[in-house]
Parts: sequence; C-alpha cells; structure tokens
Amino acid sequence: MTDIETIASRSAAGIALAYRSGEASPVEVIECLLERIDKSTAANIFITVTPERARREVEASARRYREGNPLSALDGVPLAWKDLFHVAGTRTTAGSALLADSPVRDRDMPCVANAAAAGMVTMGKLNLTEFAYSGLGLNPHFGTPVNPNDRTTHRAPGGSSSGSGTAVAAGLVPIAIGTDTGGSVRIPAAFNGIVGYKTSTGRIAKHDLIPLARSYDTIGPLARTVEDCIVADMLLRGEVASPVRRADIRSLTVVVPTNVVTDGAEPAVLENYERALDSLGKAGATIRREHVDGLDQVLEITARYGTLIAAEAYTQYREMADSEQAEQVDRRVIFRMMGGKRMSAADLLSIQQAREQLIPRITARLSGALLAMPTTLHTAPEVAPLEADDELFHAVNLKTLRNTALGNVLDLCAVALPSGRDEKGLPTSILMSAAHDEDTRLLGHAIAIERELREAQA
Amino acid sequence: MTDIETIASRSAAGIALAYRSGEASPVEVIECLLERIDKSTAANIFITVTPERARREVEASARRYREGNPLSALDGVPLAWKDLFHVAGTRTTAGSALLADSPVRDRDMPCVANAAAAGMVTMGKLNLTEFAYSGLGLNPHFGTPVNPNDRTTHRAPGGSSSGSGTAVAAGLVPIAIGTDTGGSVRIPAAFNGIVGYKTSTGRIAKHDLIPLARSYDTIGPLARTVEDCIVADMLLRGEVASPVRRADIRSLTVVVPTNVVTDGAEPAVLENYERALDSLGKAGATIRREHVDGLDQVLEITARYGTLIAAEAYTQYREMADSEQAEQVDRRVIFRMMGGKRMSAADLLSIQQAREQLIPRITARLSGALLAMPTTLHTAPEVAPLEADDELFHAVNLKTLRNTALGNVLDLCAVALPSGRDEKGLPTSILMSAAHDEDTRLLGHAIAIERELREAQA
Repeated sequence: MTDIETIASRSAAGIALAYRSGEASPVEVIECLLERIDKSTAANIFITVTPERARREVEASARRYREGNPLSALDGVPLAWKDLFHVAGTRTTAGSALLADSPVRDRDMPCVANAAAAGMVTMGKLNLTEFAYSGLGLNPHFGTPVNPNDRTTHRAPGGSSSGSGTAVAAGLVPIAIGTDTGGSVRIPAAFNGIVGYKTSTGRIAKHDLIPLARSYDTIGPLARTVEDCIVADMLLRGEVASPVRRADIRSLTVVVPTNVVTDGAEPAVLENYERALDSLGKAGATIRREHVDGLDQVLEITARYGTLIAAEAYTQYREMADSEQAEQVDRRVIFRMMGGKRMSAADLLSIQQAREQLIPRITARLSGALLAMPTTLHTAPEVAPLEADDELFHAVNLKTLRNTALGNVLDLCAVALPSGRDEKGLPTSILMSAAHDEDTRLLGHAIAIERELREAQA
Repeated sequence: MTDIETIASRSAAGIALAYRSGEASPVEVIECLLERIDKSTAANIFITVTPERARREVEASARRYREGNPLSALDGVPLAWKDLFHVAGTRTTAGSALLADSPVRDRDMPCVANAAAAGMVTMGKLNLTEFAYSGLGLNPHFGTPVNPNDRTTHRAPGGSSSGSGTAVAAGLVPIAIGTDTGGSVRIPAAFNGIVGYKTSTGRIAKHDLIPLARSYDTIGPLARTVEDCIVADMLLRGEVASPVRRADIRSLTVVVPTNVVTDGAEPAVLENYERALDSLGKAGATIRREHVDGLDQVLEITARYGTLIAAEAYTQYREMADSEQAEQVDRRVIFRMMGGKRMSAADLLSIQQAREQLIPRITARLSGALLAMPTTLHTAPEVAPLEADDELFHAVNLKTLRNTALGNVLDLCAVALPSGRDEKGLPTSILMSAAHDEDTRLLGHAIAIERELREAQA
C-alpha cells in the first residue's frame, strides 16, 4: 500500500488528521477511494457512484484547507448513503427495481445537506435490502453485496444497510449512513466487524426519508470507530459541537440479561461476548447479571400479534403490494409485507399499548445503565443456501433480527461494537443499548468500552 | 321553593357563596339534594347514590366552615360521577349489566380523591351509555335517563354521559363529571342546555379510568356555568389556583367554518348559532368565516378507514365481545364494537398517520383563534323511535356525534355553551374549540362568550 492507500483506509478522524497535518490532500484521498469504488463493482456495494459531486465537493474542501478554514472536524472526509436517502442528482431506488428509473432528485434531504454543509464528500448511494425490509442483506435486483470478511465464500453482508456495512469494511468509505428499523444498522455492523450506531427515534430528522415503518425508522452511521459515529451523528443533526464526554469505565453499569438474549447463540459469539463483559468488569465497570423483564414480553407480543414493522410496511406500500407491481418485488420482502396486511387493528393496538407499558418500564429498569447482548446470535451466514431455500431464509432472517429488534420495540438507542472473531475469522459483535434519548450517555460510555474491547482483543 | 331549594339549584359557585355568607349550611344543601335525588328515581339518572359518604363529607365540610377553614372554593359543594370512575365503596358498572355485580372498589381514583381533598361532596354515580359508547344516551340495563327539558315526551339525554347532563339540568347536582371520547361531555351538555367542557387529552389523569378508546378518552365537567367548569377542572387536577384569566371579548377571534359543520343542521340550531355568532361579533370579537381544511379530511378518513374509537373499543373489550357475554350487552354497542374488529392494522395506521398530519395543521390554522360550530345538528330526539328501530338509532347517533367527533380526531379542547332554545323549548348549543392544550386560553374566552350569549338571550 502506498501512503495514500493507508491513509484512505483510516477512520474518518484519521483521514481528517492527515489533511490537517498535510500528510495527504483531500483530493488524493477522494481519488484513491473513487478508484477503489470503481474496482469494487463486482461486490455490489454501491448502487450509484457520484464522482462528479465528490470531485466538486473535495475541490472546495481542499481550497478551504489551503486557506486554513475547514468547515468541520470532517471537512473533506468521504461518506456514502444507503440508497434510501434523497441526494441531489441521483435516483433513490430503495433497492427496488420498481424505483430504478424513478425521477432524479433535485435536492439533498436535510441530513445529507447537513453533511455537505460540514464539508463532507458524498461518494454515492449504497445497496440495501429492497425497501430496507430484512436483516440479511440479499438483493435480487442490484446483487447481494459481498461481505469482505470472507475471501472465498459469499457471505451475507447483513441488512438492510448491506452496502453501508460492506463499504466501510471493504475500505471504500470511512463512514456510511444507514437506517435501522429492526436492526438494519447494527446487523451489517456486526456481520462486517465495524461499529454501528442506532440513534434514538426522532434524533436525526427523517421526514424526507423513504419510510419502512415510521414508528421505528432511525438514521444512523456505520464506521470504523465510535468517535466517527459520534461526529457523524453530530454533523447529520446540523450541530457544530457534541455534548458527548468520554466516560470513565468505572462509572459504567452493564445489565447483562440472564434471559432471552443468548438463547441460540453460536459458541464463538457467546465466548467473545463473555470475554468482552469480563474485560469491562476487570476494567472497573459494574456488571449486573439479572433477569430483565420486558424482553420475554416483547417476544410474546410478537408471537401473539405480529410485528408493528410488518403492519407499517404494508400500510406504506399497500398500493404496490396489492397490485401487479408486487411481482417485480423480492418475493421474500412481499411475503413479509403480506403478514402485515393480515394483521387486524386490534393486533396493532395491542402492540402499541404494550409498548406504552414496556418502554417506561425498561427506562426505569436501566436508569442509566447499559443493556448488553450479542448483536447477532451468529456470524454472517453463507448466501447460497439462503438464496436456494425461502423457508431457511425466513428462519435465519428472524434469528438474525431477534436481539436487535428488541431495541426497536423497546425504543432504545444502541451501539454495536466488534467483540472478536470466530474460528473462520468472521467478526462477532456486542450490542450496548440505552434507554430512549440517552444517546449522549451511551456514546460517552461506548468510547470507553471500545477502548477496553480493543485492548482485550489486542 | 324554599330558600334552601333555590340555593341548591344554583351553580356550584352560587352554592359556595351561600355557605360563605351563612345563607345556607352545607348540610342543608346536601340533604335537600339527597331528597331530590331520592325522588328522581324514575328519571334513571343515578346508578348508585352514596348518602353515607355525602353525609360524612358534608359534616366535615360544615365543621371546616364553622372553623373558618374551607378547603377550597367548592368545599361542601356536591358533585356526582359518571359510573366509569372508581369511587371507594361503590361498584363501577360502566353502565353494563356485566359489571352490575363487579367488586366494590376500595379506593377513589386520583381525580375523585382530588375532588374529595378539595372538600367536594360525592353524591353518587351517574348513568351512561353502556361502556360509554354512543352519543344518544340510551341504556337498556339501567334505563335511559329522562331529559328534563321536555315534561311530556321522553327525549334522549345525550350520551354517553347521559346521567351527567340530566343530573345537572334536573337540579340534582351543580357539577357532574363525565368523559368525552367522541362527544360524550359536549352532547349531553347540548341536549340538556348546560355547559360542558371537553378537556385536552392528558389534562386530567385517567390511568385508572375504565377506557373506551385510550387515544381519545378525556375527563371533563358538566355544569351550569363556565366558571364552575373552570374550578372543577382545577380541583380535579389537584391544583389550588387556576391560571385562567377572563378574556376581553375583543381579543377573541372566532373561525366559523363555511364547510361541513352546519350541513344537515335543524333550522332552530342554525338560527341560534348565527344569532350567537352575531352577538359575539357585535361585542367586538373578530369573526372569520372561511373554509377550514381538515374538517372534510376527517370525514373522508372516517368513511374510508373507519374510526379509531371502534378499533380501540373492540381492542379494549375483545375478550368480552368475542364471547357469549356479548349477548348481555346492548346490541347497538356490540354492533359498533364489531365494526372495530373488522378494521385492519393498515386502516388503523392510516388514521393514525393522517392525524399526525392534520393535528399540527389545525393547530397552525387556528393559532389562538377558537373554532365555532353547532355542538349538535339537532335538539334532543325522542327516545321511543330510536328504541324501536336500530337502523334509525345508528343513523341519528352518527349525526349526533358528527361535529363533536371532529374535535376528538383533531385533538381539540372545547366548551359547549347554551345558544338558545327551539320552538318546543328544547336547548341548542354552540361549541367553541381550541387547539390541543390551549385550555387556559379557551376557558378565559369561554367566560366572556358565555356572558355575551346570556345577555343576547336575555
């Protein structure tokens, strides 16, 4: 690797540091990454690349650096967007063939505009599960992104922000912006061995985003470090300073549920999870192993009434789903939407009313502590068997979403962090969640946790 | 009438004034009203009378007055509760035969306890439409309350707070506490010629109330004057002072919709409505006659998807409604609940999502103005034809609820005020609504409006 190659593979903060020290120019880094993206076509990670915009933006950034006036901590740093965000000059496909020829958007949606106003460089739009609906990341229209953690076998990228997880892991961008409705930021982070931050509902404005399930949809970054997630979140919100403070690990209390969250976990996932908790305990965090009410109830409610996501997704897409257009949609996605069609108003209200009870209870229960669980119960599965067998697909998909979806139902915010690798070298992940709107505290602790986990894995 | 008889027929403030001036003792007034209530049995207004509690409470109140230490502006003033509130020592029937033998409650729910803590005297529990579901006030189990405005024909009391409206109009209590989910405070106020105040959702704590539709259920007073409503609201909330200030009528802007709200109104209702608006205009209020977006949309949404009330009511009572118990319930109530059972999750979400758009729009549109409409499009109909013909019942019921239900969908607060009488002497009513949580402004203006309307009708 040349120096520029190395620098371009750094975290966003690392790249920005190179700009500031004069080690590399923004233009060099962007050109290096445009070339990598260009070479990565077979990996199905990008749906649209925007080199013209990237070059225009990076030239303006380079000028600002020459003049000593960068716009933000990440001026000139590249990022890419799940193809669910409206970016001026591009189509928003939502991963669907039905939208492949949709009108080119004439302006950036608010969080995209905020990132641009902070000087970040948009490289393009990333692949996803069609309509962002499913956790494995398969896409029959644009191809399933290749998980770069296995060079021999095509493994699932995780979804629905499949292009986001793989783009960061493959070194194409240091930051990718995804969305999370049932695990769609956290699962690709887990399968790709990077950091994923699921923001609290309402934290990043989404009124212009193509919705999947309005009650749960959140926008959040995937990146190499917690710090990059913190800064990206700040810039996407249009803020110029972050209230997050690096926490002392000794001020951290971790609630480790003795129920539900490790049921069915692969041995390596469990081992790395326990080792991670152990290292946090040794570093001075308080580890509370206890039964957590509410987790079982979420599973019971889901089994009894169905999911709010299915009902909201069907409502969102009912015209399409009830028409002949449905034949052009991934059959696995339509299958899940149709589950939402069969739900009754009473089922939906039962879920909504149960949440009204459960959310304040988990908030009170945590009262400042973080809730730990394995992000996923298994590492990235092989794609071929999933493609061949829909029943297997649905079973694996539900299992993949099991832990992360608890957080959406309970309205938590969360950070997925690498916890190690299995015997095949595939990444595992630990999920740290906090109560709704406790993002500042969560992120402050996540920095300290990341450091401990890195040292433990080193 | 003796002096006590006259005093006992006054407003709550008038009764309290008599206590303070020594014109009457609390015990005399309560005994006078207990006797009236006793004689009113044929009118089906009370379900349970609580003379022991009333006597215990009034004796304590009388002692406080003798010692010069009344607890509040309404110490010793009687009130009664729709039989949906838990009052210690009574059953809560919800107007249903299924709950006629339900366990005696061992404590007051919060708003009842607040009224008692302010020295108010609970006289008993009032009749209602079964499960508070329907606007006419018919009840096959406890009898339909008799509207005291017609001495020859049994006319509908209005519902669902049927006993609340008739109790105040018949002079049995100066204040009755009802609930409003689709018009259940405002309609009985209109049919009985008294004042009804529908509070903003969330204003008076209701977590212990038997729900009909949780999203819309509100607790509110029916009384002879706006002032009594203001003080009752304050005491039910546990407040010791009210922020309401009597407004200058010239600071009032009234939005008078040119669409929807007078469609199908009886001539006398229209005439009294226009006369009321005219008198407000002459007194210096700004009258803005204009098309109000949102009202038509509410009707369209209801026609297309059904009502949120039906879905929530069915969800609340699904076990009962789906069992043999349903045969013991008013067939007209079950009929409406079953409409909720047929609604899909997508229908319900469509209503919820439409409300998320409509509520901020009407709030912005009103921006401090009050929205005027006739409370009901007709005066109290005769009971016999409604009893005889279910189809007629449902048609009249929907028409009765038409205007008030707009306010629940749009999350408004409102005061229904007498606007005059028709040629038969039956009362008509004007409804003044404000945006959600604008109660303080609404009530301050309602005092000024009431005064103008009284002068205009005098």
